[in-house]
Amino acid sequence: MMSITQDLLKDMHHYWQASNYLAAAQIYLQDNPLLKEPLRPEHIKPRLLGHWGTSPGLNFIYVHLNRLIRNTDADVLYICGPGHGAPAILANTYLEGSYSEIYPDITQDERGLRLFFRQFSTPGGIPSHVSAHTPGSIHEGGELGYSLAHATGAVFDNPDLLAVCVIGDGEAETGPLAGSWKFQCFLNPARDGAVLPILHLNGYKISSPTVMGRMNDTSLTQLFNGYGFEVFFVESDDMETVHWEMAAALDTAYSRIRMIQEQARHNHKKGRQEQWPMIILRSPKGWTGPTIWQGRKIEGTFRAHQVPLADVRHDQDQLALLEQWLLSYEPQRLFSPEGRLQSNLAALAPAGNKRMGTQAYSNGGNNVAPLRVPEFTSYALQITHPGVTTGESTRELGKMLRDIFRLNKAAANFRLFCPDETSSNRLNAVFDATDRCFMERTEAGDEHISPEGRVMEVLSEHLCQGWLEGYLLTGRHGIFPCYEAFVTIIDSMFNQHAKWLKTCREIPWRKDLPSLNYLLTSHSWRQDHNGYSHQGPGFIDTVVNKKSNVIRIYFPPDANCLLSVMDHCLRSKNYVNLVVAGKQPALQWLNIADAVEHCTQGASVWQWASNDGNSKPDIVLACAGDVPTLETVAAAWLLRRQLPGLKVRVVNVVDLMALSPKEYHPHGLEDGLFNALFTEDVPVIFAFHGYVRIVHDLVHGRPNPERFHVRGFMEEGTTTTPFDMVVLNKISRFHLAIAAIQRAEGKQENGAAMIAHFEDQLRAHAIYIRECLEDMPDIRDWKWSD
Amino acid sequence: MMSITQDLLKDMHHYWQASNYLAAAQIYLQDNPLLKEPLRPEHIKPRLLGHWGTSPGLNFIYVHLNRLIRNTDADVLYICGPGHGAPAILANTYLEGSYSEIYPDITQDERGLRLFFRQFSTPGGIPSHVSAHTPGSIHEGGELGYSLAHATGAVFDNPDLLAVCVIGDGEAETGPLAGSWKFQCFLNPARDGAVLPILHLNGYKISSPTVMGRMNDTSLTQLFNGYGFEVFFVESDDMETVHWEMAAALDTAYSRIRMIQEQARHNHKKGRQEQWPMIILRSPKGWTGPTIWQGRKIEGTFRAHQVPLADVRHDQDQLALLEQWLLSYEPQRLFSPEGRLQSNLAALAPAGNKRMGTQAYSNGGNNVAPLRVPEFTSYALQITHPGVTTGESTRELGKMLRDIFRLNKAAANFRLFCPDETSSNRLNAVFDATDRCFMERTEAGDEHISPEGRVMEVLSEHLCQGWLEGYLLTGRHGIFPCYEAFVTIIDSMFNQHAKWLKTCREIPWRKDLPSLNYLLTSHSWRQDHNGYSHQGPGFIDTVVNKKSNVIRIYFPPDANCLLSVMDHCLRSKNYVNLVVAGKQPALQWLNIADAVEHCTQGASVWQWASNDGNSKPDIVLACAGDVPTLETVAAAWLLRRQLPGLKVRVVNVVDLMALSPKEYHPHGLEDGLFNALFTEDVPVIFAFHGYVRIVHDLVHGRPNPERFHVRGFMEEGTTTTPFDMVVLNKISRFHLAIAAIQRAEGKQENGAAMIAHFEDQLRAHAIYIRECLEDMPDIRDWKWSD
Repeated sequence: MMSITQDLLKDMHHYWQASNYLAAAQIYLQDNPLLKEPLRPEHIKPRLLGHWGTSPGLNFIYVHLNRLIRNTDADVLYICGPGHGAPAILANTYLEGSYSEIYPDITQDERGLRLFFRQFSTPGGIPSHVSAHTPGSIHEGGELGYSLAHATGAVFDNPDLLAVCVIGDGEAETGPLAGSWKFQCFLNPARDGAVLPILHLNGYKISSPTVMGRMNDTSLTQLFNGYGFEVFFVESDDMETVHWEMAAALDTAYSRIRMIQEQARHNHKKGRQEQWPMIILRSPKGWTGPTIWQGRKIEGTFRAHQVPLADVRHDQDQLALLEQWLLSYEPQRLFSPEGRLQSNLAALAPAGNKRMGTQAYSNGGNNVAPLRVPEFTSYALQITHPGVTTGESTRELGKMLRDIFRLNKAAANFRLFCPDETSSNRLNAVFDATDRCFMERTEAGDEHISPEGRVMEVLSEHLCQGWLEGYLLTGRHGIFPCYEAFVTIIDSMFNQHAKWLKTCREIPWRKDLPSLNYLLTSHSWRQDHNGYSHQGPGFIDTVVNKKSNVIRIYFPPDANCLLSVMDHCLRSKNYVNLVVAGKQPALQWLNIADAVEHCTQGASVWQWASNDGNSKPDIVLACAGDVPTLETVAAAWLLRRQLPGLKVRVVNVVDLMALSPKEYHPHGLEDGLFNALFTEDVPVIFAFHGYVRIVHDLVHGRPNPERFHVRGFMEEGTTTTPFDMVVLNKISRFHLAIAAIQRAEGKQENGAAMIAHFEDQLRAHAIYIRECLEDMPDIRDWKWSD
Repeated sequence: MMSITQDLLKDMHHYWQASNYLAAAQIYLQDNPLLKEPLRPEHIKPRLLGHWGTSPGLNFIYVHLNRLIRNTDADVLYICGPGHGAPAILANTYLEGSYSEIYPDITQDERGLRLFFRQFSTPGGIPSHVSAHTPGSIHEGGELGYSLAHATGAVFDNPDLLAVCVIGDGEAETGPLAGSWKFQCFLNPARDGAVLPILHLNGYKISSPTVMGRMNDTSLTQLFNGYGFEVFFVESDDMETVHWEMAAALDTAYSRIRMIQEQARHNHKKGRQEQWPMIILRSPKGWTGPTIWQGRKIEGTFRAHQVPLADVRHDQDQLALLEQWLLSYEPQRLFSPEGRLQSNLAALAPAGNKRMGTQAYSNGGNNVAPLRVPEFTSYALQITHPGVTTGESTRELGKMLRDIFRLNKAAANFRLFCPDETSSNRLNAVFDATDRCFMERTEAGDEHISPEGRVMEVLSEHLCQGWLEGYLLTGRHGIFPCYEAFVTIIDSMFNQHAKWLKTCREIPWRKDLPSLNYLLTSHSWRQDHNGYSHQGPGFIDTVVNKKSNVIRIYFPPDANCLLSVMDHCLRSKNYVNLVVAGKQPALQWLNIADAVEHCTQGASVWQWASNDGNSKPDIVLACAGDVPTLETVAAAWLLRRQLPGLKVRVVNVVDLMALSPKEYHPHGLEDGLFNALFTEDVPVIFAFHGYVRIVHDLVHGRPNPERFHVRGFMEEGTTTTPFDMVVLNKISRFHLAIAAIQRAEGKQENGAAMIAHFEDQLRAHAIYIRECLEDMPDIRDWKWSD
């Protein structure tokens, strides 16, 4: 137990100086790592990359958290929000020894220091942001805005974990961060860990002042009191005082947190009782760095953001100032001549796995409690014949999710994240097993609301995504059902998560992580209520662009296929699984045995919808997505009935990447199997759920790709009937049948007459729609036309 | 002048009842519009779509704003944030007469009412959200989160405009909305109009309680005081009192706003002096609707969200309750037997263009002050030969933008929106003409900061996008320079804006709008500092999916092309223009005359880089994007030097949509021209800035699309040299040259030896990168390899 004493703070100050020295030296030095020789241009890296401005503040917090951990034995996860904080986190993980354990090349001596400096922001080295390479991290410091959401997700169901989240005043300006402060309404101290936000105000972004940096303490206090925080300021200009302030603020915040948890866990108080603590640290940008150069202020201004002295290789005076700056930390007093941190300082870091760089929670795969998934076939719809039974795919899935909640209740390792659409998406069977989580007072009108709920409904796709990421990265399981059009709100967050997963697979010490599972429902083709603003399948395009070893995309055409696909996804690791499936009542096609076989293969011929008798067809009608499947089956039926001489084959694609040549995606069908489905030269009419370009691309590299004629969503339609939607986007059964006849030219008699007949049907439909306002037709006409 | 009297409030209450009646009736009735007959099932629409819950509150605000407008003659724009508010806004624009003026079919009589009800959420009718169809709107009520940003953008440089922004407590949970409250720091009352936020707390989203709805008045006051607002609550349960409260709150808020503006405009006080007012309205969800059904509360709960009584066609008791609800508004007292609003009530609406439905600002094209653009050729770089001069494209553009600020100073109709990256993106010449806008106190370290600045830097892509949209939709001009990877943060906002533009083109009364211009710089290929998290060209995929009549995508390969393209974009209307151009020093290719010709055509053969002498080449090397262009020109040079017998043609594509068949995009090259560039059958090696799939798709429909072998960004590389980036993504000059030799198989001798030679070069490069950590090579090696 270390109480706060003058001597301790003095040692901590020296430890801080050591970390500041390492942060600056990573940016500048390629040699002479301990400044044993006078600094010369050849000691300086050929190109100076990296960010100094935020680093000393991050170091300051790290050093003080070390004391807190040693004092309390707490499990602390350091979430580093500021974008360019790697020099600081790397410096501290090096000082505490975790870096050298994970990367044995980077030894705790002068040689190791030299390599440590050289690898930073160097080709073949490591990136300048906190990344998956950084020990102890779950949060990439690239795109700003998600630190607090990640911290929150990490502590859900981790009652012993304290996530300390440092938020820069730049990041605090983003929308997603501004929306994250409300986590208190969803964090249950009885079962969850705690988040301690440290808002780090250093006043500037790249070149502008920050909004919060210019707010006074009164306004900040009002603001965060309003959000439900008790605010502790650390802002002294005096170096000694500021250490006292920080130590006291951390101790107080920590004891507040433990008190809140104690009350919730032992006094069984429900709901939110207290304000959670937060700390606001005001410190100059580029703290302890050069103060002035050629009459212009550096420390405390935007000029300290990146490399404060950029011309040291060529400007002797700048070089001298750099040397003076680096020597101000007295590296030779901090490190032994061999380059090892002095032992009295090294003793200030926590030991073993209490070090933040080896925090087990940060390498989520360490902690995975496997998800118990019930036998999915027991939820199967009974299907005697294709196209007879009607069912709602997501409603059936909801029953399986309900039982997943039940089976994993003790493990407390599964949550559902959704922007207030669980019922709307017809997954409401889950409310037989759990509630929506909410910590605020409940009212008479509420349903399925409690602090114990495991359904996280917040009207923010950013929070759903950020919380889920934090939950997964610490080794738990989850699902994110979302309106298809609005999941594009988190396109960029998905990008960053997919990048993180890809990078983790290249880092041997990173353990397997549970997959991120999206269920896109309320999709573009069935926005009967909502119209054009709710129609947008663009997320598929965003996902398909990412590395093939991390992404999977599925279009289960009916309920049984959805069960099979989702069972697979929930058991998988290290992927992002995108599943698109409608919620509306729809015809069902496959019994569960056929569904399993179909989903396992990824794509197959639907013989019962075809009339080619396994011989070479005249035309292939292919489809991916539930609505396109319905239209395709109907088109095949029309053709079989009207032009029995035309040999039609229907191919359904459930695993989109099956279309890709195998060299580009592991799920790509082998050439032989692909050709067995699609032939090598028969024209293919492909009805696709999303934008056509994806299919055009995926079949590039397959035999005769120009024979693939793709129809998909083309940004037409708004509030109208489901059938009108497929007509307006030219993907209706009639459009598909016409296209099939045109492409199979010469393969049937009577084609022209049939085209004319189908065009008549489309004209009649258009007239019907025009007359709707006058006629207000009966409800049957809101269903599928026949 | 109407002072507030009991009688006036009584009339206003009746007017409100009329609007509530119209809102409910739009959802339910297809006939019997004034309930002259007893309500029967056949009067009910066959399918009930629409949202009641938020409507009465929106009506309440509308009616009270009418009084404010009549009282003050203010120009008020009503921004309706809640997602499903169309029934209310439609009702009020109908009552005030603006709807019938714009849509003459919807007359002010019983026949018109009947059609007005029928068209709502009906096939062939109008959508259920506020949309471009809605008079007076600039804000689609589909995707939530952007109302306050739109309101802010609308009032920039519109000193007489008051944007009243209604924010639902659902929307208030989103990140973008939470980030929008800081608009006060960027709104200058001396030159800008005012935003009056009305936070409408009705307590529930679709099925969950809302966070702010459960906050008490003290917390809300603290929160918004912290943001710098003076808060006025309107929350009485008593119907009479609540009218008084609302009228008083609006009067007070309005006078506060005018005082702030007065002080700023006449007393020449600079910076932020006062708290802006805001109103918090607490009212029950589904206010005035049915209170209870089968023992369950409806009014004041989530059950009022959509259609509170959904089975009225088949349940006689429900039908009776609906009739009782509708009759509670006493429609036959409010409307004449002919169906016209009683004249004493009609007199409560403002007259002429003061009506919110005819507000000129809401149809931006009414107000466009054309942008004065200087002669762009005067900023041209002098280019004597291709590939000799080095220049920074965006730096040259910055000079042109600087002069645009100067030329349009008096018109005050141009702003630049950027997340604190204007200097980083090397557009800093603009600071010779203007500053960054900031209303807070300035400090000694600040540069180019003032309340008069026209560069809007806020670290929020959401705010940049939302403000710019509001600015454009009210008829002004702007540009959004952004880091390429992080513009995907606003993918979904772009989607919605593109949808709005597409819809506007289908509505005759909507006037032309200035285009939304993106400049994506700091792009994926030159993230030397930032690495993998900053590499992501996915926005191109998002844009290319939208309707061809609203999107344009350009890859100017050098500074002169960028000037030509940007000149074109800034003068264009009704588009989203996406321009991708690097900021780094790069070789320049075209003199200004050639650049203009090249950009006008969209794509052309670069003869000086080719050796086919206008005859049919053996191989075409095509490229789009500045880095791919450099590698392609270098690959052609290698091939010309090493394999002079191989006929190589270089084609550069500046207008990406030129690749598309003309039937899919108006910029698509005519078949003859396309074939003149690419031939009909010669293999094409295409080096592309983004993901390859876009090119695979665009050439689908061109002759022999399978001959297009595309290289692009494949998610490889992080902090490394620019040349290593192109190597890792297999798009380097050597990769392109090898691919060219392979594809032009048999067209040259010595091909295998050359491939081996180039592979040696790549191996040498890989060794060089591996050795970087040891060697710390000199700075020349950070530039392009040669």
